[in-house]
Order: sequence, then C-alpha cells, then structure tokens
Amino acid sequence: MTELLDSLLRGAAVSARFSRDATLQGMLDFEVALARAEADTGLIPASAVAPITASAHAADLDWPALRDAAACAGNLAIPLVKQLTARVKTLDPEAARFVHWGATSQDAIDTGLMLQVRGALDDLGTDLDGLIAQFADQVRAHRATLMIGRTWLQHALPITFGLKLAGTLDALLRARTDLRALREQVLCVQFGGAAGTLASLGTQGPAVSAALAKHLGLSDAATPWHGQRDRIVRVGSWAASLTGLLGKFARDTAMLTQTEVGEIGEASGPGRGGSSTMPHKRNPVGCAAILAAAARTPQLVATLFGAMQQDHERGLGTWHAEWETLPELLMLCGGALATSRTLIDGWTVDSARMRANVDMTHGLIMAEAVTMALGESMGRLEAHRRIEARCRDAVAQQRDLLDVLREDDGITRVLSDDALVRLTDPQHYLGAAETFVSRVLALADAVAPDSLQGGTSQ
Amino acid sequence: MTELLDSLLRGAAVSARFSRDATLQGMLDFEVALARAEADTGLIPASAVAPITASAHAADLDWPALRDAAACAGNLAIPLVKQLTARVKTLDPEAARFVHWGATSQDAIDTGLMLQVRGALDDLGTDLDGLIAQFADQVRAHRATLMIGRTWLQHALPITFGLKLAGTLDALLRARTDLRALREQVLCVQFGGAAGTLASLGTQGPAVSAALAKHLGLSDAATPWHGQRDRIVRVGSWAASLTGLLGKFARDTAMLTQTEVGEIGEASGPGRGGSSTMPHKRNPVGCAAILAAAARTPQLVATLFGAMQQDHERGLGTWHAEWETLPELLMLCGGALATSRTLIDGWTVDSARMRANVDMTHGLIMAEAVTMALGESMGRLEAHRRIEARCRDAVAQQRDLLDVLREDDGITRVLSDDALVRLTDPQHYLGAAETFVSRVLALADAVAPDSLQGGTSQ
Amino acid sequence: MTELLDSLLRGAAVSARFSRDATLQGMLDFEVALARAEADTGLIPASAVAPITASAHAADLDWPALRDAAACAGNLAIPLVKQLTARVKTLDPEAARFVHWGATSQDAIDTGLMLQVRGALDDLGTDLDGLIAQFADQVRAHRATLMIGRTWLQHALPITFGLKLAGTLDALLRARTDLRALREQVLCVQFGGAAGTLASLGTQGPAVSAALAKHLGLSDAATPWHGQRDRIVRVGSWAASLTGLLGKFARDTAMLTQTEVGEIGEASGPGRGGSSTMPHKRNPVGCAAILAAAARTPQLVATLFGAMQQDHERGLGTWHAEWETLPELLMLCGGALATSRTLIDGWTVDSARMRANVDMTHGLIMAEAVTMALGESMGRLEAHRRIEARCRDAVAQQRDLLDVLREDDGITRVLSDDALVRLTDPQHYLGAAETFVSRVLALADAVAPDSLQGGTSQ
Amino acid sequence: MTELLDSLLRGAAVSARFSRDATLQGMLDFEVALARAEADTGLIPASAVAPITASAHAADLDWPALRDAAACAGNLAIPLVKQLTARVKTLDPEAARFVHWGATSQDAIDTGLMLQVRGALDDLGTDLDGLIAQFADQVRAHRATLMIGRTWLQHALPITFGLKLAGTLDALLRARTDLRALREQVLCVQFGGAAGTLASLGTQGPAVSAALAKHLGLSDAATPWHGQRDRIVRVGSWAASLTGLLGKFARDTAMLTQTEVGEIGEASGPGRGGSSTMPHKRNPVGCAAILAAAARTPQLVATLFGAMQQDHERGLGTWHAEWETLPELLMLCGGALATSRTLIDGWTVDSARMRANVDMTHGLIMAEAVTMALGESMGRLEAHRRIEARCRDAVAQQRDLLDVLREDDGITRVLSDDALVRLTDPQHYLGAAETFVSRVLALADAVAPDSLQGGTSQ
Repeated sequence: MTELLDSLLRGAAVSARFSRDATLQGMLDFEVALARAEADTGLIPASAVAPITASAHAADLDWPALRDAAACAGNLAIPLVKQLTARVKTLDPEAARFVHWGATSQDAIDTGLMLQVRGALDDLGTDLDGLIAQFADQVRAHRATLMIGRTWLQHALPITFGLKLAGTLDALLRARTDLRALREQVLCVQFGGAAGTLASLGTQGPAVSAALAKHLGLSDAATPWHGQRDRIVRVGSWAASLTGLLGKFARDTAMLTQTEVGEIGEASGPGRGGSSTMPHKRNPVGCAAILAAAARTPQLVATLFGAMQQDHERGLGTWHAEWETLPELLMLCGGALATSRTLIDGWTVDSARMRANVDMTHGLIMAEAVTMALGESMGRLEAHRRIEARCRDAVAQQRDLLDVLREDDGITRVLSDDALVRLTDPQHYLGAAETFVSRVLALADAVAPDSLQGGTSQ
Repeated sequence: MTELLDSLLRGAAVSARFSRDATLQGMLDFEVALARAEADTGLIPASAVAPITASAHAADLDWPALRDAAACAGNLAIPLVKQLTARVKTLDPEAARFVHWGATSQDAIDTGLMLQVRGALDDLGTDLDGLIAQFADQVRAHRATLMIGRTWLQHALPITFGLKLAGTLDALLRARTDLRALREQVLCVQFGGAAGTLASLGTQGPAVSAALAKHLGLSDAATPWHGQRDRIVRVGSWAASLTGLLGKFARDTAMLTQTEVGEIGEASGPGRGGSSTMPHKRNPVGCAAILAAAARTPQLVATLFGAMQQDHERGLGTWHAEWETLPELLMLCGGALATSRTLIDGWTVDSARMRANVDMTHGLIMAEAVTMALGESMGRLEAHRRIEARCRDAVAQQRDLLDVLREDDGITRVLSDDALVRLTDPQHYLGAAETFVSRVLALADAVAPDSLQGGTSQ
Repeated sequence: MTELLDSLLRGAAVSARFSRDATLQGMLDFEVALARAEADTGLIPASAVAPITASAHAADLDWPALRDAAACAGNLAIPLVKQLTARVKTLDPEAARFVHWGATSQDAIDTGLMLQVRGALDDLGTDLDGLIAQFADQVRAHRATLMIGRTWLQHALPITFGLKLAGTLDALLRARTDLRALREQVLCVQFGGAAGTLASLGTQGPAVSAALAKHLGLSDAATPWHGQRDRIVRVGSWAASLTGLLGKFARDTAMLTQTEVGEIGEASGPGRGGSSTMPHKRNPVGCAAILAAAARTPQLVATLFGAMQQDHERGLGTWHAEWETLPELLMLCGGALATSRTLIDGWTVDSARMRANVDMTHGLIMAEAVTMALGESMGRLEAHRRIEARCRDAVAQQRDLLDVLREDDGITRVLSDDALVRLTDPQHYLGAAETFVSRVLALADAVAPDSLQGGTSQ
Repeated sequence: MTELLDSLLRGAAVSARFSRDATLQGMLDFEVALARAEADTGLIPASAVAPITASAHAADLDWPALRDAAACAGNLAIPLVKQLTARVKTLDPEAARFVHWGATSQDAIDTGLMLQVRGALDDLGTDLDGLIAQFADQVRAHRATLMIGRTWLQHALPITFGLKLAGTLDALLRARTDLRALREQVLCVQFGGAAGTLASLGTQGPAVSAALAKHLGLSDAATPWHGQRDRIVRVGSWAASLTGLLGKFARDTAMLTQTEVGEIGEASGPGRGGSSTMPHKRNPVGCAAILAAAARTPQLVATLFGAMQQDHERGLGTWHAEWETLPELLMLCGGALATSRTLIDGWTVDSARMRANVDMTHGLIMAEAVTMALGESMGRLEAHRRIEARCRDAVAQQRDLLDVLREDDGITRVLSDDALVRLTDPQHYLGAAETFVSRVLALADAVAPDSLQGGTSQ
C-alpha cells in the first residue's frame, strides 16, 4: 500500500520496525550473528566476522534489485545473501565464502522477523503501559461520574463512567499479562538449515543455534519451527485481541459523541475532525481510525491461522502469506494504540450531559430498583409485571415514574414514600460499581508502579 | 507495506493504478470533472475550470503534508482540497472559490476510487484475456495428453491434461463474463454532497451528477451510494473468486511439480526458483506467489463484506477499512494473473512422465472400467466387491491387474480376454473428455475471437 | 449446532431446505433423475426406474447409520447409495444393479446441493420481493418525513426518512437483479463420474447429463465442475452481500432506537424485546438477530473463497469445508431477510421525534446552506471559516445559529434577513432527495409490478 | 446444521458439551448456584434453594417453546427463566420469587457457556494428552526412519520421520502449556446484573459473586466482563491454533498418502475410505476431516475477534454472533483431535517406501552436503555454482550424482573418493535431527509422565 494513510491508520513506532530498511536489517543482523556464532564454535574463521559485519547495512543494499530478484527467487533472502556476499567479497574474498554458512533463506527471514516483532512488541508494550496509565487516571477521575448504562442500545441502569472505563482497563491489564507470557514463548531464533536438521553444520548445529540466539538476545528453540507457525499465530492473536478491545472502546466512545448523546467530544481544532462542508461538526476521527483497524485485524489474523498449513518442510504460499500480514496486523494495532492515547489525551468528557442523560427517561431506569424491592414481598415476576405496567403508564403520560408509582396502591401499600424516593434516585443504585473500580485500580497499581506515575502527561 | 515484495506478489499494472500519485490523481480528476460539470450547468463560472484543471496534478501536491493532515482530518480528501484550492488561488483567486463546490470528501474519494478500479479492471481484463488465450492454446496442445485423474490425492481414472486445463479455462471464461456485467453495474460516480441530497446545489444536483459522470466516462447512479457498499463488495468478490480459481490452478500445478510426480516443471534459470543451498532444486516459485495471493484474498474480501455496515450517512471506520483493502485485493489478483501467465509461458509439461504415472498402479485405475462392464451382468455392487478383492490381490502380489483378472473364473466367464485387454487400456477409457474439451474451446473461441489469436506470444 | 437458536437466527423456509431430510432427499432426487436419464438413453433398463423411484424417500433411510458411516466413507453419498441399493434390492434385485450407475459421490452431493440451493434461492427471492414491496411502501409513506442525516455519527444535513430507506431499497433492487443472473449461472448439474470424464458411460455421458439436467430442471454444465467452485462462491457472495446490506439497515435502525434518539421503536408486546429485569425497555431484538447474521456471513463466505483450492479432481477437506458453510450462510441470510420483514411490519416510526432531532442543534446543521450561499460572494473557504466561527459562538452561547448570524455584519452585508431565515429552514434544504426517491420507486415499480401490490400485507 | 456430519467432522465428547440439553443445563446450573450463593449471603431464604435445584433439569424444559420464545426475547435465558420459575412455583410459590434474583440474562448465558467451555477444555485436554502420547510413541519408533525432507514440494535433504513428527509434537506441547494458562485465565463467572453493577444486590454483589464462583468451581472475575470478550477470543484462538497445527499434520500426511509418494496409508477396511466406484482406492478420509476443520476454524475465530466490538453494556448482534461460533469452533477442534488420534492408531507407515523415495533423485539431495564440504576449500558460492552444474548433468544424463562428481577434476582434486561416497550417503547427513528429537521427547516426558505411559493403547 501507499504511505498516504500511514499517519491516520498506523503507529509510527511500529511502522518503523517494519520499514524497508528494518526488514532488510533484520535479515542482515541474522547473518552477522550467524557469522559470530559460527566463529565462536570454530566452524568459520574468526577473521570472517569483521568484513561480514561491516557489510551488513541495509542502507547499502540495492533494494530495487532485491525486490525484482525476489520475484524469481521466491523470497528476499536469496538475493540479499547474494548482495551481501558480493559486498563482503570486496572487503575480504576469503570471508565471502562463509556468508550465510549452513543456513537457509527461511532461517534469515524468520529470525529477522522475530527481531522486528521483538521491537514491535517493545513499542506496543510501551504504548500499552502508557495507555493503562491514562485509563487508570481517567478511572480515578470518573469513579463517581454518574452515567447511564446501556444495554441493547437502550438505557438500562445507572453506572459510573469510571466503571465503564475500568472494564476496558481490566482487559488492557490482561493484554499486558499476556504480552509478558507471549514474549517468553515466541521470541526465539529459527535455525534449521535446508530441511530442519542443520546437517551442513555436522554435529555443531545446536551449539551454533545457542550462540546465535545469545548474540541476538532471543531464545533458542527446542526444534526448528519452519513448518510450525503457532508462534506467529500467537503474536497475531495477541495484537488482534488488543486491537479488538480498543475497537470496543472506540465504538462506545463514538456512540457517546453522537449529537444526541454528547457525553464525549474528541479534540477539535484547526484541521482536526472538521467537515469540509459542515463547520459545526466535530468528527470522532480518532475513533474511526481505531475502528478501521479493528475492522481489518480479525481477517488478518484469520489469514495467519489459515497459513498454519505449511507444506512439509517449507510452506508453499502459506509462508509467503504471512510476510505482509503479520506486520500489517502489528502496525494497525500500533495505530489503534497510539490513536487511543491521543484520543484520551484530547477528549472532553461532559459529565453534566452524562447526568442529564441519566435523567432523560424520567426515572424509568430505576424500575429495576423498585422491582427488586417490590419483589421481596410480592415475588419477582409479579413485581416485574406490575412495574412494567407502571412504566408503560409513565411513558404514555410522559410523567416521572416516581409520580406514577405513588398512585399505585399495590405499591404504596408495600413501599413508603421515602423508600420510593430513595429507590428512584440513581445515585443510590450503583451496587458494586465502586468495588469493581477499586479492584481494577489495585491491579493497575500492582503491575506497573513506575509507568502509572506519568499518566496523561506522557 | 514496503515495496519489497511488489514484484513477487503484486501485478505491476494494477499496482500502478493504486500508486500514491494515482490515488491522489483519482480525486483530482473528480475535482476537475466536477468543475466542468458545474460550469456546464452554470453553477460556477466557466472561467474557473481552466485554473482548477491546471492545478490538479498529483505530482504537484505535497503528499507528506497530505498524509499527516489526514490523521486529523480523518481522510485524504479534506487536506487535498485545501492544497488544491491554495494552488488554484495562486492562478486565479476567483476560481479558488469554486473548488469542490457542493461536494463532500466521500464524493471525491469514492469516485476517485471508481476511476482507479476502472483502470484496474481494464488491466485485469487484458491479462485475463491473455491468460484465456494461453489456456486455450494449452488445452488444444494437450487435448490428447493422457494423465491420471486424482481424487482424494489418489490415482482415480485416466483423464487428459487438456481436460484438466479446460476446467480452469471454463471457470476463467465465467470470470470474463462476470467482469463485463460487473463493469456495467459498478463503475459509476458517487456524488451526494454532505448527506446524500446534493442540497447545496439546489435543484441542479442531478444535472451536475449526470454531467460529472459523462466527463469521467462513468455511469450516473440512481441514488448516491455513500452508505450502500454492495458495489465495492461486487468488485472485491470478483477479484477474490478469480484469485481463488488461479489458486486452485497453482495448487494443482505445484502438486504436479513434486519430485515424486514430476509432470510439470516451472521455468528455471539463473536466480529463478533455485535454492540457496540445494542446487538441484527447481522451486515452484510462481505457484507459491499465486498461492500466497489466494491465501490472503478470502480474508480481504471478508473485510469488505463486514464493512458494509456503514453508519447512517457515512461509515465510521468501516468506510476507512475499505481504503487499503480493495486496492490490496485487486493488486494481489493482478499479481496472481500476471504470475499465472508467466508460469504457463515458461513451464515444461512432461507428457512422458504423465503417461508413466498413469501406468504406475499396474492397471488398478482401470478397475472401474472392468467393474462397469462386469456390473452389466452381475450388478454393480457384486461387481464392485469382486473387483475390489482382485485389486487387493494385485496390490498384495505386486502384479498387473489384468493378469490377476485373467485368473478369476467369475470374471473370465463373463468377459473375453480381448474385452479385458481393452477394458484395462486407459486410452480407451476417457469417456466424454474430448467432448468437454471441445465445448470449452468453442466457448473460448466465441467470446474473444481477437484476443485468442495471440496466444502465448502475448 | 443445536436447534435452540433457529427461530431467532435462521429463516424457517430456508432452514427447511437444508434440513436433514431435505439434504438426503436432494441426493435421492439425483439418483432417481439419473436412473430416468439413463433409462432414456438406454444405458439401464426402463424397468429399473420405478423401484429406484419408489425407494428414494429420505424418511425411509436410517440416518444415524448414514451419519456414522460417513465418518469412514468420507461423505454421505457412499453410505446413502448403499442404503438405497439395499432398499431397491428388496423390490427388484435386477434394478438394484443400476442404482448410481456411472456416477460418483460428488455428483450426487453437488447436484443435490444445487437442488437445495435452488429451493433456498426461491425462498430468498420471495422474501426479497416481499421486503422490496415493504420498503417501497415505506419510502412512499416517508418521502416527506424530515429527519437528520448523520455523518461520523454527527448531525450533518436534513434528509428524509424516505431517502434513507430508498438507499437500501436501491441496493435491494440490485440484489434482486443479481439473483436473476445468479440463478441462470449457477443452477446446473454436476455430473462427471469418478474423475470428470463420465468414462463409465462410454460415449453416452453428455446425453445422460443433458437428460439428467432436464429431469431436475437444472442447466447442463459445459464441463463437470467438481474442482471449480466459483458457482458455490457466487451463491455465497450474493447471500453475504444481501445479509451485509440488511446489516447496514439493522445497524442504522438500531441506532435510531437508542433511548436518546428514539426515532424508531421495534414492536413490543408480551415476551417481545423485553428485558428480564428492566420493564421499561424495548430491545431492538430484530436488529440484533440481523446484526448477528451480518457479523457471521463475511467469514462464512471467506471460507468458501478459501475452499476454492480443491486438490486435483476432488477437493480434500476444502470440498468438505463447503458442506455446512454454504447452508449456514443461506440460512442466516434467510433469517436476516425474514427478520427484516417482521421488523418493518411491526416498527413504530416517530416522525415528530425525527423532526425534534433535526432541530436539536439549533440550526447548526444549516451552516452548510448558509456557507454555500455566502460562498458565492466571498468564496467557499472564506465562507467556511466565517460560518465555522459563528457555529462555535452559537454552541458556546447555546443560541440558535440564525440569531448569531444576524449579528455578523460580514454576513448580513451579503444576505438579507429573509434569505437567512429561508437558508436556515431544513425543509428548504433537501436538494435532490425527492428526485432520488422517485428514481428508486420507479425502478421498484418497473421490476416487480405484481409483488409490489401486496406491500406489508404479505 | 443437521447432525448428518457430526461423526465425520465433530468430536463426540465436545459435541455432547454443546448439545441442546447441555446448553440449557449450563444456564440452569448457574441459576441453582446463584440461589445457593444468595442463600449463603442471606439475600434469599435458604428454603428457596431446594425447589429451585429440584426444578433445574434441562430434560424437563419445553425446548421448542424456548426456541420460539427466544426469537421475541432476543436470547434463550429470558424464556428459560420463565419456564424455570413456573416449575419452581408448582413446588413452592415462595421460592419462585427468588429465581434468577438480581441476575441478568447475560449472566446466565455467559456463565453457562463457561461451564460448557470448561467441560470442552477437559475433553480437549484429555485427547490432547492422548495424542501427545501417541506422537511420543511414534517419534520414538521412527527416530531412525530415514525419509526425504521436502521444501517447495521438492526433495531437499534427508530427515527422519521421527524429526518430522517431533516438530508437530513440540507444537502440541506448546498447545498443552497454553491450555493450562488459558484455563486459569478464562474460566470465571460472569455476574454483573442488568448493567454490570449488581445494583439489585445492594452491597452484597461481590460476596454473591464469590460464592457463585465457588459453587460452580470457576474463578471470580475482578469485574463483570459482559462487554469485554477477550476471554472468549482466547479460548477460540487456542482452539483454532490447535486445529491449525493438526491441519498442517493432516496436510503433510495426506501428501504422503499420494499414490506417487505412498509413504503413509490411512487405515482401510469395509466402508472405510473406499471409493464408490474405484475399488483400489484408500482415501485419506481422516486427513480430509481434519483439513475441513482447519479450513473453517480461521474464519470462525475471526468472527469472535470481530465480535469484540460489543455495544456499551451489552453487545447488539456481536454477542449473539458468539453463541454458535465458539461451540462450533471447539467441536471442530474436538473432531480434528479425535480424528488425528484415530488416524495415527490406524495408519501404515511404509519405511521402505520412504527410503526408496530418498533415493529416487539419484543422490541429487546430497548436493548440499558436497557443496558444504567443497565450500570449505573453494568458497560457498563457487562450490554452489559447480555442484549446480554437476546436478544438471546428472539430471540430463539420468545418472547418479556420485558418478558424475567422480568425473569432475575440480572436485576430485579436493575430495577423495571415500569422502565423496560418505558425503553422498543420506544416513550420514542428518545433522542435529537426533538431538532435536531427544529434546522434544524430554519435554514430552517431563510434562505428562502418567499420560505418556499408555501411548496408543488409550
């Protein structure tokens, strides 16, 4: 794709991890570390390391030639190794003999990818911590901000904005926990040689693999995983899940910006969220960008799941299908994260409008509270039927539910007027909201003491 | 994504249709045609057309500024119109007033996209015609080339390579028919103004829309379709279906290149399909590229289907999700088409190996023929049971089925030795293969007399 | 899946087409028609037809035995043919020899599927015609019902509810046109025998295929299509597109039922859309059911696109992946269609609330109208900037835009008070809405004169 | 869907977890545990528990009535609670008042689902352990079985069948590790009441939730997760990943059953894998079933990722989209697991054919070994070029590579004849295969000492 939508849709940091040069450098870093590892184990002369290292700079490669050669070679590593070898040869013909020694293209591509993924997970982790801090701040700020809870898009019961945000924060914290496990599980070298036996290294394969992993700061793998792609899928699933929960946040936020709802406004300003023809509009541009990511990531991860069917010792087409899909997924996730941070930094939360919306149904949302109280004496179903009837009256007569209830003898016989007044006050019907909020804040405080200091100032 | 895999995965022609400049130019062409249409109807002064036209060159735009402004504006059209207006202003401040008159961003983006799609469909249609010609040539060349038909990956009955190719050719011809219908149905302007009423043009909206369509060579639409995306989905479905059938072709071809099968070889040569470590290999690189496209397009089109849920009069996130997805889908389709053409141009069909493979089961594949003949006298199930037993004997004894059959009195009582010899000759058991081939060739000849001349020389 | 959600999610008529018995009967109908076709051409004795016909009743089969045998056989047709043959044998041992003569399992399964698909398309077509009639009635009823157009979920410009519905109606009419083309293109027999040559029928294969098609009321195919699944994909794409556009309709409708919006209410009544705990709620249950279908169909059709990669002459796993996916897709589409009809039949459109919502931004939505008028004298961008500032004033001061505009000398210098009053009246700013509505109604009248009489009474 | 394909495609144990009755019982178990928890905390009378418990049997419910009522209610829990309440009333009218006290439909549905998921994960875990044991046995049995490694579907280098299986075993062990983490993370109650505050329980909500979790043997959740569906996605991702890796195994296995390859045969026998028309065939039916599952699960999990966009405090359509999708995914995974076990139990591994295939390229696959040895003296690229040329000679002359090499002075000058003989023997070119196998077996032994005893006898 063109770069035209990069700023809107993709995270800058993660995108840099998958730039043209970064992609090439990942493979070059593999080749350098391989030379070092093989020199360590005495497989190649130590003197070969310096010229290989000196030649392994992505910026020096002729990338259009790589691009075109890949069409014939079937991947980028084959022409890259040729270019690298040619460059090494100019420095040290002897060293050129040992470039890519015993490795196969997939070793360079997969391990290079892992280096890129590690960087991307670093970036995503940083932004995730930042976002968690912002959410924690917002939860604290809004733990008492009354708003309406909506189910089936209808007003249900009062909640707090803090509770609503705490639900997302709780999910973000789970994503953070998963990220740690993920890094341990997936960030490892792929090194198997032509068919996964490292046969060309004789008995030294495992030693070279261990040294290679050490030089790159990755784990060694129990076996080469050229045909087993569950690690790729794990990375993709994590990113898609994180993007999905940000999508839920963006969807809710966008709904709250609706003209009729007006509880949240995205930042506005020159050139931001304005309409070309309607000057009064404040478009939820950030939400749209996050939602666009969330609309695409489920299918991108499905491609990765489908690509697990790799043929024998090298996937034919399925391996190739991963190459742009995983980066795209991570970049869209990065965009969704970064945009979420910007969104919260700049949003306007209109708590007065939230409160006004709570009241707009004239007490209908408190019907449950009355039903429950009434149910204690007359049974839940009977109470339900009676209150349902009174709600219909209130709607038909456009009156407050409290006033209608006061006229129902069956109700006043059981509940005093004080009780009715209290039962119909939304502030008194928040149940465990505060408990839930406290629990999530405690979790947030526990896992990230440092990063939680900065908050929205980041 | 980076450009590194463009040559391997994407068609050059289609990719050019969705380049950065082409994307911007599509919108600019809309703006120019709009000015002309509005001058035609007297809505704006005729003198405004020339300066707008003169300023509408993609190469003149500051695209990094557009990219970054899009993050705030929510789309590319808003900053593009601003840049265009500024450029027009330097030529004619009066004309600058009338840039984008009465239009909304989506009008420019969607109509610009339609211009790009039209170009892409032109390219895909040309390559499709070329591929159809190649297939027709190959079907003719191989209508008598005996090969084994394989079901459940097991040898089944003899077919011809021509018949196998004719199945794909038949499907390609259906794709060609669909392409015609598709073009008529989808290539139309989107022009609705801010909310789909063209209110800012007073009563002139429909007249402007008609003139706009005429200037751009697109159809006018009965109503603006900003919220109704079935046309986008139709384009995507067509491309995904075409890619899918090419994927089936590539899968079969790749299977035929297996070392154990060896019936087809992809072109080889310096840097083509070689392995970095195994000099004897001739990798089916073209098949892999097509299969990679076919592994990704189903999910890309799913994103488009999912994006049909556009909110009210402008999709929030779902519209945005289309922007890179449809181009990616068409480019991958273009890559699969172009690679299919290259593949056939360069492949080696080993008809001797095909024949040898037909014979490798020592006549077992002719069991059905004998069963059918036998079934006429002893019933299908009884014949089936008896032949199944003889096949087991042939396998256990590693002998030709004919020899085993000759020893079964129950069979020789019913079938003469001449009959058995004839029944076990695969050349005599091709049924309607030739009829089917002729039908498909007739269809191919009928639909594209001109393009079918060129054949593989294209 | 269990039947528990059938009433909520699936259309009864379409579901009946894919019931257990209907699935088996489709294959049995193939076997009967095959016997008739082969008797026609003299391949089997005419006397075999009657006992085969008499035995081919799904209700007589032992379906649990079929189910379990399928696990070993790999498909349902193999054990079904065995059971059928056994039943025929009890009537006429001679006839039993000719059951399934020359056919393969895929012939029975695919052709049986086509019979089911034809029935499903009949049902979907009927409901589509009915829905089109309902929409046409509603468009007529609401062609003058003013409502707000919403872009980015923000109030944009006034439209009519009739125009909004006409957009969907226009798309439904395109789906109707596509359905006709689809039926002609896809409803054909699959008949190729073991490997697509019909070898076991000697030279009679094409004649039998033609007769078979005639008996079943399907088209004959130019070639067997066992490995070419574009027809399956076409059916699935059509259904997914239709479901997608109903999803857009349901999404919009659900948004209009929001408590804060209140423009549409789904039918309510005992047990309908009520909440178990909140008696005042009127849940958009129908919208939810349609949206659930629209959330699943994109991925179901992606499975079909992916399954185009069938191996050689019989798909291994990919063919099997179609078996439940296409029916599920069509049943969900049927459910979405049926629910859409029920939804419209029972909904309440609150045009007063629509009007009140138009007015809720105190005239801000008319900013464009004023901008356009102003732009004629001072240029679009300058007018845009000035009105944007006045809108901010109106919002900040909570006053009507008209009042704020009246105080801006730069504006009153150019526009008279009469002009300002007219320019800020939404009724006068509907542009081509009525034209667009008329066009779509004309299309609706043209294509379905009969079915459009009945309207909502259907 | 109908039950017709249950035996072929779905696992019996997992399917039973999602049967009609099990689905209803999950919700009923929630209601019983809720009553007990509320009696524990004094919210409802202890005497209400017994009649509620006595009435909560799925078999007693009128499921067709539930099915039909769900269409109006929008979910199954609403009518289920009504039926349950009515049944309790016949036993104890007082107790009937307390059915479902303070809960919402989603609490019953989500928690019921978690109970079903727990059971399904039990079953999947058991089958996974069994499969791991089978794989460990097979790896041990075949650690020295020479076979060809295939990349790009071409012969690459020798491997062992044990190594190939160890790759899958290693991935299965990762899936096992993930399963443990998964169970801890996801198996928790959903309990939030109407809008996630448990307001109707006053301050007792958290205590009831804790007791509820204890009674059900699930974890308590920090906050209700009605709108946060990452747990659902985690379960689905795990199952899709496991199915995907089984799909890779099935794809490879199916390729090995090809007539031309013949290294593996699926079990055959009466009615198993036979063709209706070709008695000699042994179809890889088990592979097809696994591949069908693997072709569908990526899209099913994509639906779950997409459904994360739940609206506010209750998903509209997206929640509904999960209901059949997650069970379908788990059942297909169960089918793939069970079929994998059957497949291995019954397969025939033809090690002689494996060896014959290793030798079929007349030593070409040993080119790398010679290249590496040669590269030590003449450099990798030069060695590569020279051996590539000799391979072409060997192919052109249809001679063994060893013989051709012996005639190349440039080679014999560097390598002795003994060295050439050794270098071209595949047994001597297995590198670290045995090390990798040992590592994976050690992991397998470590994690499941008990279950690994039984092996294939399970």
